[in-house]
Amino acid sequence: MEHTYAVIMAGGGGTRLWPVSRKNRPKQMIPLVENRTLFQTTVQRLDGLFPPERILVVTVPAQAPELMAQVPDLPRENFLLEPEPRGTASAIGLAAALLYRRDSKAVMASLHSDHFIRNNDLFALLLRVAADVAKKNYLVTLGITPSYPATAYGYIQRGELLREQFGYPAYRVLRFTEKPDQAAAREMLQAGDHSWNSGIFVWKAARILEEFQRQMPSFKMVLDDLAALYGTRDFDGNLARLWPALDTETIDYAIMENAEKVAVIPASGLEWSDVGSWDSLFDVLLPDEHGNIVFSGHHIALDTHNSLVYGNRDNRLIVTIGVDDLVVVDSGDVLLVCRRDEAQKVGRLVLNLKNSDSEHYT
Amino acid sequence: MEHTYAVIMAGGGGTRLWPVSRKNRPKQMIPLVENRTLFQTTVQRLDGLFPPERILVVTVPAQAPELMAQVPDLPRENFLLEPEPRGTASAIGLAAALLYRRDSKAVMASLHSDHFIRNNDLFALLLRVAADVAKKNYLVTLGITPSYPATAYGYIQRGELLREQFGYPAYRVLRFTEKPDQAAAREMLQAGDHSWNSGIFVWKAARILEEFQRQMPSFKMVLDDLAALYGTRDFDGNLARLWPALDTETIDYAIMENAEKVAVIPASGLEWSDVGSWDSLFDVLLPDEHGNIVFSGHHIALDTHNSLVYGNRDNRLIVTIGVDDLVVVDSGDVLLVCRRDEAQKVGRLVLNLKNSDSEHYT
Repeated sequence: MEHTYAVIMAGGGGTRLWPVSRKNRPKQMIPLVENRTLFQTTVQRLDGLFPPERILVVTVPAQAPELMAQVPDLPRENFLLEPEPRGTASAIGLAAALLYRRDSKAVMASLHSDHFIRNNDLFALLLRVAADVAKKNYLVTLGITPSYPATAYGYIQRGELLREQFGYPAYRVLRFTEKPDQAAAREMLQAGDHSWNSGIFVWKAARILEEFQRQMPSFKMVLDDLAALYGTRDFDGNLARLWPALDTETIDYAIMENAEKVAVIPASGLEWSDVGSWDSLFDVLLPDEHGNIVFSGHHIALDTHNSLVYGNRDNRLIVTIGVDDLVVVDSGDVLLVCRRDEAQKVGRLVLNLKNSDSEHYT
Repeated sequence: MEHTYAVIMAGGGGTRLWPVSRKNRPKQMIPLVENRTLFQTTVQRLDGLFPPERILVVTVPAQAPELMAQVPDLPRENFLLEPEPRGTASAIGLAAALLYRRDSKAVMASLHSDHFIRNNDLFALLLRVAADVAKKNYLVTLGITPSYPATAYGYIQRGELLREQFGYPAYRVLRFTEKPDQAAAREMLQAGDHSWNSGIFVWKAARILEEFQRQMPSFKMVLDDLAALYGTRDFDGNLARLWPALDTETIDYAIMENAEKVAVIPASGLEWSDVGSWDSLFDVLLPDEHGNIVFSGHHIALDTHNSLVYGNRDNRLIVTIGVDDLVVVDSGDVLLVCRRDEAQKVGRLVLNLKNSDSEHYT
């Protein structure tokens, strides 16, 4: 995969695995899968696809040291530090601008640091398929085949078939739909021509910059200025000065919804999860014979089923009796007890805490 | 109530409110009701009925300092220290033997330190009624009117009416039944002539000693020896030597089941609870408008109903989301999450822990 680069977005401060994930220790940094973090598994998934020097990580200064320590094989200069997180548009835009200066033929795959993918072989194959489509000047997204009428994801509607490779077709995208309500989600699921938006994108750096130029010209000017300064002593100062003035937008809303030549590759069988709630860990990890997922050195379960128990203090005993479909998370100064099917309420709660005098718990 | 004495049994090491109650901090010592402990409310309930010098407390050395501190108005010499807890037969027997030497006409009310009674006025009235019956040489028990086929209590079947005073009849007891199975409990409930055994007894010291003499003569001999030494320098040494040799029996099994002239006063309306599980606190305390009972400085409840949340660390936030009929107890090195209707399993669990390498959690 000559001229291809991976860009991992790792600056987020997720709230949805709170209270284990906190402001300064977001989801991607937490050991979740066989004692490895989602960030580590994201980097390992690229092994053999991209040489280390072509794997970039976009993050914020507060998180960089810990992330660097988690993947010691990645060169430190591959970490691009945003002064503060401002949505994926600015992070992806800056990475694209820098890559383009480095290699005008660069094709970049933009990846999340805190998602889970079980089928790494298929992922590798799909990235190759996507890169080939991207070389034809398409903005390519991987679409997840919906399994239920989710309201937590954006949807992508496909149109005409563009090409098929290794049995995986690429389609022109007709429409992006932001997170829908239940009725709209059900309709799209039934229609059969929609995928969930995974947020995994593959495109030529030149091509996405062209869209920035067309849709956000002043934003693009800032990106060009910064890229021109990269590697000089003036870069950091200008970044700190210009960054806060950029719009805080997602790439989906800022660019993709109105972009030209957008393609989707339905990635059926990827076994992808955005690990968007405690409940989602039941899709990621293998529960025990009672359906339980236990992160705790000392747990006694009586008549406990389909529940998640998380404790991270060695000398603490957690006992559950007669408990079903529950999430119990004992972490530091917070105890969360939540019914699994209400776990999506955690994110909203944390946002409320952030705006209260309990902000120190977040 | 001349010649009447209260004897409060306070040496127990209850397991059923674990993990808040522990070996060295049993149930009676925990603030549960308006920041007062069950021991404190037990003593306060006697206010106006018995002068302080006629209220005795039987406990063990490890618990005495804390108990004394909780009721500073009780004279320290009223605390009778068992070298170790050995069941109610020995504790009650020794108290009776000592009282008899102090006052041969003594009538004693034997009370638990860790039970709850809401209707204190009725309790006072019933003690007067019971004392009058006891003066006729009856062993009197207060019987609780059963409200469901409980298997956690002993049952008392009543026979002929002995007398009635203030509208409260006393009956001769036909039979004591130990904790029954579900079918037997249902039968006794339907029969309508059974009460639960509250373990509240009223009798003349002379009369219960007569039963000890008849049913446990060698045991009675030890009690007499100890009573004769009480107040001398030889008492403590002899107590320490003789106590471990006494049978570990409950007064119910050792004496009451085969005693002569036993009476029961059905104590309907007492609003009594043995506080025998976390679930029982819903009978003792007033839940909030969502049916919850919360002991925690910092609790956030979303969609939480009919649940008990106990936390005793000020800087800890407890969050419950979508939780019904659950007990959550966060105490020291243990977290318990238990369905309310399984709360009676806690006692057995603690006994198992005691016999394991996790004994330090009990």
